Amino acid sequence: MTIRQLTHQILQKKSFLCIGLDVDLDKIPQHLLAAKDPIFEFNKAIIDATHDIAVAYKPNTAFYEAYGLKGWAALEKTINYLNNKHPEVFTIADAKRGDIGNTSAMYAKAFLQDLGFDSVTVAPYMGKDSVEPFLAVKGKFTILLALTSNEGAFDFQVQGAGNGELYKKVLETSKTWQGSDNLMYVAGATKAEYFKEIRKIVPDNFLLVPGVGTQGGSLKDVCRYGMNSRVGLLVNSSRAIIYAGTGEDFALKAREEALKVQQEMKEILFQV
Amino acid sequence: MTIRQLTHQILQKKSFLCIGLDVDLDKIPQHLLAAKDPIFEFNKAIIDATHDIAVAYKPNTAFYEAYGLKGWAALEKTINYLNNKHPEVFTIADAKRGDIGNTSAMYAKAFLQDLGFDSVTVAPYMGKDSVEPFLAVKGKFTILLALTSNEGAFDFQVQGAGNGELYKKVLETSKTWQGSDNLMYVAGATKAEYFKEIRKIVPDNFLLVPGVGTQGGSLKDVCRYGMNSRVGLLVNSSRAIIYAGTGEDFALKAREEALKVQQEMKEILFQV
Repeated sequence: MTIRQLTHQILQKKSFLCIGLDVDLDKIPQHLLAAKDPIFEFNKAIIDATHDIAVAYKPNTAFYEAYGLKGWAALEKTINYLNNKHPEVFTIADAKRGDIGNTSAMYAKAFLQDLGFDSVTVAPYMGKDSVEPFLAVKGKFTILLALTSNEGAFDFQVQGAGNGELYKKVLETSKTWQGSDNLMYVAGATKAEYFKEIRKIVPDNFLLVPGVGTQGGSLKDVCRYGMNSRVGLLVNSSRAIIYAGTGEDFALKAREEALKVQQEMKEILFQV
Repeated sequence: MTIRQLTHQILQKKSFLCIGLDVDLDKIPQHLLAAKDPIFEFNKAIIDATHDIAVAYKPNTAFYEAYGLKGWAALEKTINYLNNKHPEVFTIADAKRGDIGNTSAMYAKAFLQDLGFDSVTVAPYMGKDSVEPFLAVKGKFTILLALTSNEGAFDFQVQGAGNGELYKKVLETSKTWQGSDNLMYVAGATKAEYFKEIRKIVPDNFLLVPGVGTQGGSLKDVCRYGMNSRVGLLVNSSRAIIYAGTGEDFALKAREEALKVQQEMKEILFQV
């Protein structure tokens, strides 16, 4: 998928909503547990109920690995379903990987080529040669952690490094890497006041924004400081949407919750 | 496993060698490809040929995820084999994970509880609440990236942060986290001159040292600056050992290569 296609989809759906598919078997409707593959059945129902108002889906790999082989099979089925039934949506493997070069190349193969995700999240701590193997995959995107939505972000990311804070150093340095055209960044909604600084360094790149919803970030603030001429934002909500209902009508409840966010997005898109 | 048991094993085997099980189907002896599970057969042969001279095994999860379901199944079989046949060895899931708290908890469950590894490597970029869920698992170890062996380590890890470089800040800050007794650290052999600084901050913790072998680090330098009274080092070699041979005698060749390293370790252990 190209940035142009992504922006086109956003304007068409009047939405820049990404839904996080973080499936916890203790939290999904209990009637699904009788199914052969409850994780996939849950995802399929959520996707079918929301694909016209969400532009991206983001399974977090931790939730699949926690169920071993069964979980990995459900992840494969979920990305195959998205690629076959809804090829217009943008897919994100929220994996937060990063290792020495030959190892990162294996992760890039796993997520971007074999599983066929459009993008994968990557941690920057190990620097250039840990990220470039992801950037080398043509037509795919690498979403680098810059400023995350959690409390622990204050431990290192906003520490001084060079002429600014570490997250700024990450943004600046990453622009010099081979394949940097394929970069997007994670910037947490809980730190919307930092978005002005982020946009000074990366005005054009898409930002994947977690932290709206359960984590408490404000959509309006994120848009005020983070939006650019190509919209440039994918705002994620996971738990607040997918666990909105616990009964047989859970997918409908998820849609209702997603619609609330999408309505807010629509207003912002056509007024800002 | 306790630190006391780990040190006991080191002294008994006269070795602090960790063997990295980074299995690439393009590099293993081709006759194995006819087996039902070539990845596991390769690992089993390497483990059987080296378990008396290696104290730890470290599968890097990237190499398993790159083969999808088949790879994940081979990882499960490998850790089960280690836990059942060689319960005395220390096992490391080289996964370099790290995410917001509820997500890190899922990774901790996957690697330390369900798969039953003794330890898992974790990236520090997201700070305290991304690491503490791993530290909370009793009787297990979290191996935090401090100073990695690759070139990209210079991009951020040795940048100024607070009163020192970022890797020092990571070491210092991590000591204040809940469960910090369960911490070990990754410190690359290619940067042995930094070990003196690392030992000033974490004199007692074990260091997992990649970068000896293919990456070019010196074992002598690592030991000179990094060893402590409990040995405190696990030195990893992956490719140089496991791909020492390509024929039917590959496991024997791997053993010969491992023996060379172990001999050097033995001399250092009983002379330093």
